[in-house]
Amino acid sequence: MSFTPEKMAPLKARRLGINTHHEPTLYLREDSPVCRSEGFESLSRITVNCQDRHIIASLNIVCSDLLEPEQAGFSESAWQMLDLKPNAEIWLSHPRPVQSLSYVRAKVYGHELDELQLQSIINDIVEGRYADVHLAAFITACGDDSLSDREITALTEAMVKAGSRIDWGLEQVIDKHCVGGLPGNRTTPIIVSILTACGLTVPKTSSRAITSPAGTADTMETLTEVALSLEQMRTVVNREKGCLAWGGSVRLSPADDMLIQVERALDIDSEGQLIASVLSKKLAAGATHVLIDIPVGPTAKVRSQEAAERLSESFKTVAHNLGLQLDVLLTDGSQPIGRGIGPALEARDILAVLQNKPDAPSDLRDRATLIAGAMLEMVGESAPGKGQQRAMEKITSGEAWDRFRRICEAQGGLKKPPVAPYRYALVAPSDCEVLDVDNRQLAKIAKLAGAPADPAAGIELHVKIGDKVEQYQPLLTIHAENAGELNYAVDYLTDHELVLTLSSNGKESTR
Amino acid sequence: MSFTPEKMAPLKARRLGINTHHEPTLYLREDSPVCRSEGFESLSRITVNCQDRHIIASLNIVCSDLLEPEQAGFSESAWQMLDLKPNAEIWLSHPRPVQSLSYVRAKVYGHELDELQLQSIINDIVEGRYADVHLAAFITACGDDSLSDREITALTEAMVKAGSRIDWGLEQVIDKHCVGGLPGNRTTPIIVSILTACGLTVPKTSSRAITSPAGTADTMETLTEVALSLEQMRTVVNREKGCLAWGGSVRLSPADDMLIQVERALDIDSEGQLIASVLSKKLAAGATHVLIDIPVGPTAKVRSQEAAERLSESFKTVAHNLGLQLDVLLTDGSQPIGRGIGPALEARDILAVLQNKPDAPSDLRDRATLIAGAMLEMVGESAPGKGQQRAMEKITSGEAWDRFRRICEAQGGLKKPPVAPYRYALVAPSDCEVLDVDNRQLAKIAKLAGAPADPAAGIELHVKIGDKVEQYQPLLTIHAENAGELNYAVDYLTDHELVLTLSSNGKESTR
Repeated sequence: MSFTPEKMAPLKARRLGINTHHEPTLYLREDSPVCRSEGFESLSRITVNCQDRHIIASLNIVCSDLLEPEQAGFSESAWQMLDLKPNAEIWLSHPRPVQSLSYVRAKVYGHELDELQLQSIINDIVEGRYADVHLAAFITACGDDSLSDREITALTEAMVKAGSRIDWGLEQVIDKHCVGGLPGNRTTPIIVSILTACGLTVPKTSSRAITSPAGTADTMETLTEVALSLEQMRTVVNREKGCLAWGGSVRLSPADDMLIQVERALDIDSEGQLIASVLSKKLAAGATHVLIDIPVGPTAKVRSQEAAERLSESFKTVAHNLGLQLDVLLTDGSQPIGRGIGPALEARDILAVLQNKPDAPSDLRDRATLIAGAMLEMVGESAPGKGQQRAMEKITSGEAWDRFRRICEAQGGLKKPPVAPYRYALVAPSDCEVLDVDNRQLAKIAKLAGAPADPAAGIELHVKIGDKVEQYQPLLTIHAENAGELNYAVDYLTDHELVLTLSSNGKESTR
Repeated sequence: MSFTPEKMAPLKARRLGINTHHEPTLYLREDSPVCRSEGFESLSRITVNCQDRHIIASLNIVCSDLLEPEQAGFSESAWQMLDLKPNAEIWLSHPRPVQSLSYVRAKVYGHELDELQLQSIINDIVEGRYADVHLAAFITACGDDSLSDREITALTEAMVKAGSRIDWGLEQVIDKHCVGGLPGNRTTPIIVSILTACGLTVPKTSSRAITSPAGTADTMETLTEVALSLEQMRTVVNREKGCLAWGGSVRLSPADDMLIQVERALDIDSEGQLIASVLSKKLAAGATHVLIDIPVGPTAKVRSQEAAERLSESFKTVAHNLGLQLDVLLTDGSQPIGRGIGPALEARDILAVLQNKPDAPSDLRDRATLIAGAMLEMVGESAPGKGQQRAMEKITSGEAWDRFRRICEAQGGLKKPPVAPYRYALVAPSDCEVLDVDNRQLAKIAKLAGAPADPAAGIELHVKIGDKVEQYQPLLTIHAENAGELNYAVDYLTDHELVLTLSSNGKESTR
């Protein structure tokens, strides 16, 4: 259909300043003639045309005088996608049917999709033609591991093609990814420092936290600038061989960014989507060699050895199809790594390890050198079985710390991570042993204390599973930037929640 | 977790007058302390507590001065669910995890759900604990006809239990449903008139159009009042044996109302969901005997005889499990029924049939008497094979028309349907034969002309498939309430769309 928008009276654009995330939303008065004449209703999908652009938005009808009758209100994403100016003229029309939704339905009905169909779905997602409910349907249809390795390969390629891709012009560009976030598992800055000190190129981009108390980008932001442009990132990498940047400023695999948000809301994360998500980001960032860290534990993302091995096999097959070198490490996911949980507290652990301090958390150091060592062996920089030792030497020699400082200087200067003034210490009620730690509850408390928005907030965990503690010995300390948030986290902690499992006089108890 | 909301500073409620449909939405300023302290982000799910109620809403962050910092803005559905007053104090908290979402995930992973699990899903949907993306995931997981008849039965029962149910205290309460809307297929008012004239009880509730140019409730609204309360409905039925009310004013199967909206957005309508939707509405309305009309045709909902028979079998099995008498009629779905498409135009066809006028559309009369006859036979009111004749007699005798008038009087008075002043006639470009009619394109044009919001708008279709027409003979007339909408519909019609397929001089042509 080819309606000429000029046939309809234009409306005047107004920025309402409502953040509806990536789903662009249009607001129209119910008594506006276009609503009546077009039969537009709340939640209709609607094409919004301005002088030289058009998008599909979801409609919310306004029945108050929030808008003038001739105004069309815009959410932030809609306003930005159309690059509007206040009072700009816009025209509305019914959107064309989205052809690729029929492929989503085909997937629902169990059909295997080919490359063109998957590319068409991903392109329509990136172009904003899918509402969140359509994304949810696509994600669900790909659930139950219903994607074949062939489909995962095609999906990954489609996701890479739909965004920017960096070409470093190098034979070896190395990267890593950890599948299931354990609190405090902030090995990346240490690994990048070790590998660049060994002469490898590691242009690392990381995400901010969305559901966890800290992402690598949040932690790094307490130490230096992370919002680099692609140009700045190139400069840093050319100078120091590596970087520790926030991935959000570079448009790598934008379809993945949109799918992930709905996956989190649904808590459905199929193997196929996970693999395509990770590998599309790595390919787009120009990686040639990737190490995947899969922590396995009862409160980690991957809960059994069998599940980890299945996932590992699929990762390897798809990476092979895509010409990517990939190895997998299955690691212990039973409890948090290091002492800190939260951006600045995790940064302190990282500094202690890099500076080789005697009280540095050995579990974080051991895990970082284990992964870095595996990566060194993977690219032939160390003989098999010798990688971790070489990685360790880069820490003890101070070379990793030196490289880390130089990367931070290149990104805008090394800063001291902030410190939170408000604290609450949880002490052992009696002499006892720590039997178990709940990763998910700890993450929750750290978030209630203000992490990651308040960078100094979070938890310091003083014990590990198996530790024997005396009465009144501190188990954990909550850090907060203000009293209100501290109280909120403490309320949650004291409110019958199973965060640490303690033995007491031979009898198990929980606090 | 048991946060006492009093520990957080209250916000002041403000009604923003934004209609987000059934998904309640809360609007908060990004600089409001609660957003920062709670880590709330756009699209977070959030519990909103007022003095004596609480709901879960989706959050939209506001980065303009649309709101004062201490204000919390509410969408219409959120405002109504909490029954708020302006400036009422509200408190926010993180919602408890929604347990039943794990059953949705189990369904995604191919597990069969039991009665308790399905009931828990439906209860959470009705309580507003599911965002639209969760509804989309549930609908998709039930796609590919992945629900067993046992699950469909349990789902239907769960949907009935989650709403009101009418008990008429009668042995026989009869109802009907048409699965795939053909334009103009408005048999219900005629059937109800015939059956009540035969002494049967038919407490009919119908829906308004959502994607079609008219629902039975829209058509009936041009003739009488349809927004009856349950009490008014009882009074009408006690007096006249039947009613023709809008189902929206009675809370029958509210989960279905919420699921249907997302099903339409996804265009995914699995057999299981369809059967549960229809039968839950009928059971809730107190029906004991139900006739299902399945039109079969290339542009109807059910496109093949095999698909119709499969659907028919499932309907029968589930109805049997639920103790409901159910018969199925497969009918011709190749072209619209009657002449009018649109509320008032369809009402005119209905009146012509009931008043037994010589120019009444015979296809509408034949179909209505066919269905009414089958229903008479179903409840033993007519001998097998004699039902349609008896139904026809009620029309020719004037008893059906008399009953229809009395029902309308009881509902608030019989009105004349309105007439649209603006018309456009499409005429035959040459002598030719009508080879095909596209139901979907006709529906679209009728909606562009203003139906159903403008009750007089729509299409009068002057021809049927197989009709031979002369040059300049009218094929269809578009009706509109104003010139702008008429033009819009005409533009669409003339814009290369395949609405009618005509033969011309032995060569097929389309207009």
